[in-house]
Amino acid sequence: MGRVTQPVRVLRIDGCGTTPRPDRLAVEEPLELRLDGRAHAVTMRTPGHDIELAHGWLHAEGVIVAASDVLRAQYCAGSVLDDDSGTPVNTYNVLDLMLASGITPPRPRDTYTSSACGVCGADSIDSLGRQGRYDLACDETRVGADLLSALPDLLRRQQRTFEATGGVHAAGLFESDGSPLVVREDVGRHNAVDKVVGWALLAGRLPLAGTVLQVSGRLSFELVQKAYLAGIPIVSAVSAPSSLAVATGERLGLTVAGFVRDSSLNLYTHPERVMKPLASPGPPRSRQARPAKS
Amino acid sequence: MGRVTQPVRVLRIDGCGTTPRPDRLAVEEPLELRLDGRAHAVTMRTPGHDIELAHGWLHAEGVIVAASDVLRAQYCAGSVLDDDSGTPVNTYNVLDLMLASGITPPRPRDTYTSSACGVCGADSIDSLGRQGRYDLACDETRVGADLLSALPDLLRRQQRTFEATGGVHAAGLFESDGSPLVVREDVGRHNAVDKVVGWALLAGRLPLAGTVLQVSGRLSFELVQKAYLAGIPIVSAVSAPSSLAVATGERLGLTVAGFVRDSSLNLYTHPERVMKPLASPGPPRSRQARPAKS
Repeated sequence: MGRVTQPVRVLRIDGCGTTPRPDRLAVEEPLELRLDGRAHAVTMRTPGHDIELAHGWLHAEGVIVAASDVLRAQYCAGSVLDDDSGTPVNTYNVLDLMLASGITPPRPRDTYTSSACGVCGADSIDSLGRQGRYDLACDETRVGADLLSALPDLLRRQQRTFEATGGVHAAGLFESDGSPLVVREDVGRHNAVDKVVGWALLAGRLPLAGTVLQVSGRLSFELVQKAYLAGIPIVSAVSAPSSLAVATGERLGLTVAGFVRDSSLNLYTHPERVMKPLASPGPPRSRQARPAKS
Repeated sequence: MGRVTQPVRVLRIDGCGTTPRPDRLAVEEPLELRLDGRAHAVTMRTPGHDIELAHGWLHAEGVIVAASDVLRAQYCAGSVLDDDSGTPVNTYNVLDLMLASGITPPRPRDTYTSSACGVCGADSIDSLGRQGRYDLACDETRVGADLLSALPDLLRRQQRTFEATGGVHAAGLFESDGSPLVVREDVGRHNAVDKVVGWALLAGRLPLAGTVLQVSGRLSFELVQKAYLAGIPIVSAVSAPSSLAVATGERLGLTVAGFVRDSSLNLYTHPERVMKPLASPGPPRSRQARPAKS
């Protein structure tokens, strides 16, 4: 799996004693994003699909809206000198994007972004909310509750890095009939979503009307906003949404589902897009209705 | 629980049908941090312990090293106008810190930080690693493997917000005999750790020699670095560490434990601080030794 996972020796301690053993870690490395040759931002990410990541991130920042807004993307060879030989090496951790004429690079960020951060770049609280190009209030996508509750398993089956390491988030884009469009993994959940949106942008598929974004963990404000900006009408999470994720979904017209597990789910906003309850397999089950908060 | 959780109506769909029901969300709100009256950074956080959060964050940024480096911290009343009346209101989302003479505020960040981000602030990849004041390579803390494996349960018992919402991370600081020092929760895992370190800084307890930092989720570079800067020798996670978390722990002298669950754990770095294996309750058990990657 290349630079996506890394072998490691661990000391395993359990009831059987102490055992040295091999294991695999999810790779977390910095990606420096340069715009027109100028350092712009650094994010901690799992290598792979970096160009999608850069496009998705710039889209969420409001800098680009189409693939043609970026003329070229290339790793900067020679940005780092080899410790021993002193010769320039390509770390594949510095990516330079040349923007098309008329596309204004935003002010350099002078920051780096952790593996779990994706919305850095605003001046103040007032600028948290970005104006999108797509009106989701008019989106008439419909999806079955049964299908929605099946998405976490469909996502999980494609989480190869998670399977190997247990250490990455995933985001998957599905059509409303459950057909998978793309799945991306990353140590940063925002990166996984940026990679999905970047994939769609590069494929000329924005807006993503009629799709569902399924994420493997919790749902924060930033993820709902990224979905909104890409025109995704339904966002579904295996775990809990935050208060601001729900408020943002409500305000912007997104359907927010959470605790999607074990053939059950919670709808927090715009439930009109989710059709009929799951089929009941006989008499009411004794399963506790409240989702496990774990 | 004040502004920490928020009631919400959800539509619960499961095998029993569709049921409207009350639920609670973890609150995510922006906190704008001002230094000497000037906007500096915005982070998405769960309200509460904001002053600890600000101190912990400034400590991790290398700006302050002691409580006396901040002369005053207060919420800015009147930073926002009420929509209806036009009168200034205090949102408790803007916090101004007056720095002591000789303490230089860093360059304003012009950014905001998601609920999952905590390390923004560097110019380039080269500045990712900060030089700490404490040499952990010489730290001789020892902790029993049994005790280490018990910490997630001890932490969980104090995760009141998680219990109510399922939507927050937690960080807990324990002495090497298992005595709890402080537990903090937040929608951002870095915020939870910043609140813990901020608590310690305000209490004059830095460096945190002889302690263990237990976190509820995964372990990324940023969390290991924050622990190192606070002089914490042992960091333990319920889930997986990233490759850079492990490399950073190895380089800086921290013991990194992961997958600490069900009376078992993995040691990734500096295992010399963890004493003897867990007591074996008889013949070797058939439990699969490899941790569940989930």
